[in-house]
Amino acid sequence: MPTHTAPRPAVTPVPPRPLRSVPDSAADPHAVLSEAVTAPLAGGGEIGYAALDYAASAPVLRRVWDEVAAYAPYYGSVHRGTGHLSRLSTELFERARETVAAFLGCRADDRLLFTRSTTDSLNLLAAALPAGTRVFVFETEHHAALLPWAHHGHRVHHLPAPTAPEEAVRVAEEALAGAPEGPKLLCVTGASNVTGELWPVRRLAAAAHRHGARIVLDAAQLVPHREVNVGELGVDWVAFSGHKLYAPFGAGVLAGRADWLDAAEPYLAGGGATRVVARDGDGGLRVSWAEGEARHEAGSPNVVGALAVAAACRALTDGGGYPALRAREAELLTRLRTGLAALPAVTELSLFGAESERVAVVSFTVDGWESGELATVLSERYGIGVRSGMFCAQPLVRRLLDADGDSEDCGGTLRALRASFGAGTPGEHVDRLIGALAALTAG
Amino acid sequence: MPTHTAPRPAVTPVPPRPLRSVPDSAADPHAVLSEAVTAPLAGGGEIGYAALDYAASAPVLRRVWDEVAAYAPYYGSVHRGTGHLSRLSTELFERARETVAAFLGCRADDRLLFTRSTTDSLNLLAAALPAGTRVFVFETEHHAALLPWAHHGHRVHHLPAPTAPEEAVRVAEEALAGAPEGPKLLCVTGASNVTGELWPVRRLAAAAHRHGARIVLDAAQLVPHREVNVGELGVDWVAFSGHKLYAPFGAGVLAGRADWLDAAEPYLAGGGATRVVARDGDGGLRVSWAEGEARHEAGSPNVVGALAVAAACRALTDGGGYPALRAREAELLTRLRTGLAALPAVTELSLFGAESERVAVVSFTVDGWESGELATVLSERYGIGVRSGMFCAQPLVRRLLDADGDSEDCGGTLRALRASFGAGTPGEHVDRLIGALAALTAG
Repeated sequence: MPTHTAPRPAVTPVPPRPLRSVPDSAADPHAVLSEAVTAPLAGGGEIGYAALDYAASAPVLRRVWDEVAAYAPYYGSVHRGTGHLSRLSTELFERARETVAAFLGCRADDRLLFTRSTTDSLNLLAAALPAGTRVFVFETEHHAALLPWAHHGHRVHHLPAPTAPEEAVRVAEEALAGAPEGPKLLCVTGASNVTGELWPVRRLAAAAHRHGARIVLDAAQLVPHREVNVGELGVDWVAFSGHKLYAPFGAGVLAGRADWLDAAEPYLAGGGATRVVARDGDGGLRVSWAEGEARHEAGSPNVVGALAVAAACRALTDGGGYPALRAREAELLTRLRTGLAALPAVTELSLFGAESERVAVVSFTVDGWESGELATVLSERYGIGVRSGMFCAQPLVRRLLDADGDSEDCGGTLRALRASFGAGTPGEHVDRLIGALAALTAG
Repeated sequence: MPTHTAPRPAVTPVPPRPLRSVPDSAADPHAVLSEAVTAPLAGGGEIGYAALDYAASAPVLRRVWDEVAAYAPYYGSVHRGTGHLSRLSTELFERARETVAAFLGCRADDRLLFTRSTTDSLNLLAAALPAGTRVFVFETEHHAALLPWAHHGHRVHHLPAPTAPEEAVRVAEEALAGAPEGPKLLCVTGASNVTGELWPVRRLAAAAHRHGARIVLDAAQLVPHREVNVGELGVDWVAFSGHKLYAPFGAGVLAGRADWLDAAEPYLAGGGATRVVARDGDGGLRVSWAEGEARHEAGSPNVVGALAVAAACRALTDGGGYPALRAREAELLTRLRTGLAALPAVTELSLFGAESERVAVVSFTVDGWESGELATVLSERYGIGVRSGMFCAQPLVRRLLDADGDSEDCGGTLRALRASFGAGTPGEHVDRLIGALAALTAG
């Protein structure tokens, strides 16, 4: 085959042009898209929707939406083309990775993988652990952090629910100290998805490392409310979901130490995760897998989801950032907890006690009410969205309710309600919930 | 605990209200969002971007975007709440499932799972196959269909590249006939991601079933161009990606027979996939997994991604639907292939011969040009986006190029270019590509 018979034009790739500037619709970087949404009432009429279930899924930040909307016409394949939109999309995707890594305070040699959710991130890590790893996890975790380890064949040590952060550290330390040699992983939440209580992550990380274990932080409920710095906390990995961070476009994150990830079989087998795929002499295939992030990101990356997560990271650190958000949430949290405490029928759930520090997530029971029925009444008559049930954390909820048995619903009448909020929540939503509970439990 | 001390208001759940009607921005349901996008040229100035890499990732259909935008303020948790937006989101998510199932002609008892991509769908199926399943796959598949089976421990029989559809059927039939008893799966593409050529899916399905095997259709490249009806084709499962179907919001689909999926361990371990999680007497956990779709959809579902796929299914069947799209694509395909055939330096790649039926995907080599360099020139000087390389289908591309070895790039100068298009592609884009290739190969 002849080469280069045609005259060659000079090839000087033009750098991808930045997107048109994002519309300035959000003077407040913490404004959410659901502000003007109303809900129909059972008695007729409409009311502004009080979204108090941020812990399940937060509304879309306006800033996130604006960035997604600015990008959508420019959508192109990532890592798979030489056209302008492919190069632009690839650059934006990799820049999103850098943004999120910086947001998390990742170390220079950490990997940051875009997954689909916290559940997916922890399943990926479980699949990547060395054979024979022992995993230590408190029974108080939500299912995404409880279940992946045994699912991938690892031996799991379930640690009993502690009654104080210090006890959590002591229990973990004793369990790790007593474990035989070999790879060990401690999995711990940053903030409980049921009680909102903060866990002593820094001390647990130190305890894990003292005993040769590694630690993964489930930050699904922490990162929407508090800065998470992997390096400062000393954790080996962190996982979270975009949909709890105001960016519900199908992306989550797993970030942290490279060695086990690099040594593991790819999470998914497919294009993008391969370097060479060739027929071998035996009629089979010889595959050499990619290194770096690509190894675990087979298939076309979800660039919209990744950009949305990065946009949320930027929005949450702009305009006063987390300190402003945290101060606002603390004010509303006090208002909510004080209001609930004044209602005799309401009992707040807590592992570590009323004074323990917590994010804007509060669970409680209401005497005389089955929680599913109460949640429905709150929705239909007051336009309030809360969560009822066991919050994908059944062992913890049973423990908090002092419930025996293992039914799906703790016996029906025992289940809890959860109210949670964050950026964009007006005080009126909290006041409406307290007023509704007062009316429904009066007399 | 006392029950029901408070007076009970009547609870009559209000049905979720439909979203405001989608803006009527798309008189043409096949219009795409990238229509007005321009690309910078190396010599200065801008030109309308000619997106000719639909086979990697298609632009966003305007209708899809409008539906996503109409929904975004109403985003709420799916299967996880009693508030109005949670109920609305859950209803829209499950309705999206029904829409896509109807679009695919699924049987009443089929499962339809939302995954993240074709790669994810086929990995999920690979994880769900009974132990000991033998998988039969042509070496001509792309990596997403080649690699998941061995990755999940199944024995794989690689079938040689056929030179005609009839040969494909014969080769598959002989291989299946010669296989020992036990579960068997044939995995086959609907349309090649390299040559665009259609595979004889119906006949392959019949052959598989004659020999007690099942068949999964990789429709990633077929469904953007042709109606796919699972029941009519007689396939057991079908997989495709939203991002090739004008809906790039992180969702893909696996649909088909329930029995193996229902019997398998959940794909991911986590919330949403469980019914009961309880401590057992031995200090461990007792888990009973959900049934139905929930079993394999752990974690909060990507409701935006699912709605986008459903919106694409509706848009593609509206306004003349596939017949109109197919007629338009056929016209442009003839224009492209005739133009390429007139260029002495260009050689089209084909497995089944020039007359074989194909979708709007054409790969070719250009004498004297390394394809990556040529693709860059097409982008920088003509604003044309094509794909160069091996298209995540290395064994097929080596076969088509008659290349030995197993390097990543077939030795550098041998790689192919691919042009692909679909809804919203103007004839000018095709003409521009032919004109550019004529100019670059002249003299």
